Amino acid sequence: MTTICVDAMGGDERPEVVLEGIAAALAADPELEVLVAGDEGVVGPFAESHERARALVTTEVIGMGEHPAEAVRAKRDSSIVRGCAAVRAGEADGFFSAGSTGAIFTAATLGVGRIRGIRRPALATALPGLDGHRTIALDLGANADARPEMLVQFAHMGRAYAKVVLGVEDARVGLLSNGTEDAKGSELAVSYHEALAAAGCGFAGNAEGTDLLLGSFDVIVCDGFTGNVALKSMEGTAKYLVKQIKAAAGESKRSAVGALLFKPALKRVAAELSGDEYGGAVLLGLKAPVFIGHGATSATAVAKGTAACAAAVRGGLVDGIAQALADAS
Amino acid sequence: MTTICVDAMGGDERPEVVLEGIAAALAADPELEVLVAGDEGVVGPFAESHERARALVTTEVIGMGEHPAEAVRAKRDSSIVRGCAAVRAGEADGFFSAGSTGAIFTAATLGVGRIRGIRRPALATALPGLDGHRTIALDLGANADARPEMLVQFAHMGRAYAKVVLGVEDARVGLLSNGTEDAKGSELAVSYHEALAAAGCGFAGNAEGTDLLLGSFDVIVCDGFTGNVALKSMEGTAKYLVKQIKAAAGESKRSAVGALLFKPALKRVAAELSGDEYGGAVLLGLKAPVFIGHGATSATAVAKGTAACAAAVRGGLVDGIAQALADAS
Repeated sequence: MTTICVDAMGGDERPEVVLEGIAAALAADPELEVLVAGDEGVVGPFAESHERARALVTTEVIGMGEHPAEAVRAKRDSSIVRGCAAVRAGEADGFFSAGSTGAIFTAATLGVGRIRGIRRPALATALPGLDGHRTIALDLGANADARPEMLVQFAHMGRAYAKVVLGVEDARVGLLSNGTEDAKGSELAVSYHEALAAAGCGFAGNAEGTDLLLGSFDVIVCDGFTGNVALKSMEGTAKYLVKQIKAAAGESKRSAVGALLFKPALKRVAAELSGDEYGGAVLLGLKAPVFIGHGATSATAVAKGTAACAAAVRGGLVDGIAQALADAS
Repeated sequence: MTTICVDAMGGDERPEVVLEGIAAALAADPELEVLVAGDEGVVGPFAESHERARALVTTEVIGMGEHPAEAVRAKRDSSIVRGCAAVRAGEADGFFSAGSTGAIFTAATLGVGRIRGIRRPALATALPGLDGHRTIALDLGANADARPEMLVQFAHMGRAYAKVVLGVEDARVGLLSNGTEDAKGSELAVSYHEALAAAGCGFAGNAEGTDLLLGSFDVIVCDGFTGNVALKSMEGTAKYLVKQIKAAAGESKRSAVGALLFKPALKRVAAELSGDEYGGAVLLGLKAPVFIGHGATSATAVAKGTAACAAAVRGGLVDGIAQALADAS
C-alpha cells in the first residue's frame, strides 16, 4: 500500500473539486491510500465514506497570495505545513497540493527535509513534446539565483527523475541558453556551462527556448529565474493561441463549423501543455516526492497528480537521486 | 521619397523571394525607393526592370551560421556590411535584412553607428496581444549581459518606439521577472528593478512571461539572455501547438473536416505570432532604423519589414529616441 497525503484546501477551486480528484485516484488504484488534509467538515465526511481514505484534520489554510515564509511560520496548523509534517513522521510516503508553490516549497524544505548533500530543492516538470518525447525541465522557479554547482545537482536530479518517470537511462542534459554554441550565454550561463561540462552528468550542450517542446534533450536545466520566465512565456503563448483561435471561430460560419468539429482535439492539445496530464510539477531533492498542481486545478489534475506522486514513490525517485549524487561525488 | 536599403542575400530563402517582397513593397508605396544590395546577377536585372529600385552590387554573402564579428571583419564587400555603409553615407535612410541577427547587429553598430549616449543597441519587436494590444519587448538577444543603466536606456528606447509605431504616449514599462511583486527576481533582476524605479521612465513594475502576450504593459524590458529565452520559448510553443493541431486533424474524419474549414483562421493566428506581420525585429539605438526579418523569410515578410523600416524613418524613430535620452539626462 502506498500512502499519499493530499491537501484538500489547496488551489483556487472549492475543496469538493480536490475531493472528486482523490476519489478518482482511489478508484483507479487499489494499492493507493490517501491521507486527506483539511478542515474537519471537508475531510471528515470524505474519509468516512471512502475506503482507503483517512482524515488529517487541520484548522488553517495558506492562501495563494500570502507571503510563503511568513505564512508557513505563522500557520502551523495549515494543511500544507501539517501535510509535510505527516510525510516526515512516516504517515504518508508523498505529498500533493495545488496550493501556493512558494508555501509548499518552504514547508516541504523545512518539513519533509532535503536529501543529504542537496543544496536546494528544485521545481521540475515533464514537458510534452513531438512523437511522445518528453523533456524534464528544472528549475522552474524555486531558486531565482543559483550557483554553478547547483546546476550540476539539478542535472543529477533531472536525470534520476527521467529514469524513474520516463524510463530514460543516461538522459541527455541541456543548459537553457540564448544559443546552441558553447560560448553563447550570459556570464552566469557560461559559468553554468563550464561546471556542467566538467561534471560528468550527461551534459550534451546548450539548449534554446525552442528545445523545451521541440528539442531532443531529456533534461534541460536552468536557474529558477530563467525557468520561470520560460515556463510562463510558454503558458502565455498557449493561452493566447487558444483565445485567438476561439475568437477566429466566431468570424465566419465556415470557421465556426470547423472549430466545433475540431474542438475535442484542440482541447486535448491544450490540456497536454497545461501540465495537468502528467501530474503537474515536482519538487526534487526532498526526502519524499512532493508534487504541486496548478492553482486553477480540476478533479482530473488532482487525480493525475496524486497518481504521479504514488508512481514516484514506487519508482524509487528519492533513492535514485541519492544514488546519483553518491555516484557523482 | 524614403530610401530603404534591402539585403537581397539575407535569410535561408533564395534571393528571388526577397526580390518578390521588395517588388510588393514598391508597388504598395509610391513614396518608397529601394537600394537593393547583393550579387550583380541578382540585383542588376531587378533594378533595371523596377522603377524606384537601384542596385548596390556586392560580391560577398555572410551566412547564417558564421561567427558574426569575424564575418563582418572578413567580408567587407558583403551585402550586410555594404548596406550599413550605404546608410551611414546617406544613400539610404534605413536598412532591412533577413540575414544573421548577430552579423547585422555587429555591422550596424559599427557601420550605421549609435545614437549619442546609447551604450548598446537593443533588439526589439512589437508582440501581438488580445484586442489589438501590442507590447514592445526588448532586449531580445543583442546583449546577453546588461547592466542596470542599460535597462533604463532600453525603457527609454522602447517608449520612443511605442510612440512612433503604436502611437502610445507615455508608455507603461514592465520589467520581465519571475513574479509581479517588487522584491521578486534574481539579484540581477532586483538591481534592474531598482534602477528602473529610480529613473522616471514610465516604470510600472514587474511583468511575468505571461504578460508578453496577455498583459497590459506597452513595453517590457529585460536583458538579452532572458529576452532570447522568452522569445524562443514562445516561438517553440506556437510551432508545437500548430504541429500538434495538424497531427490531431489526421486522427478522425470529424477532426479532418473541422481542421480544413478552420485552417485559414489558424494560419492567420500563427502568422501574427511569427513577427512577420509587423515587420520583424528592429535594432533600437542606431542612427537609422535597422530591421531584421526571420531567416526563414517570405516575400510577405520582406515587404512588411521594408514598409516598417520606411514607417520608422518617416515617424522620426531616431529623433524620438535621441529626444527621450536628452529629456532623461
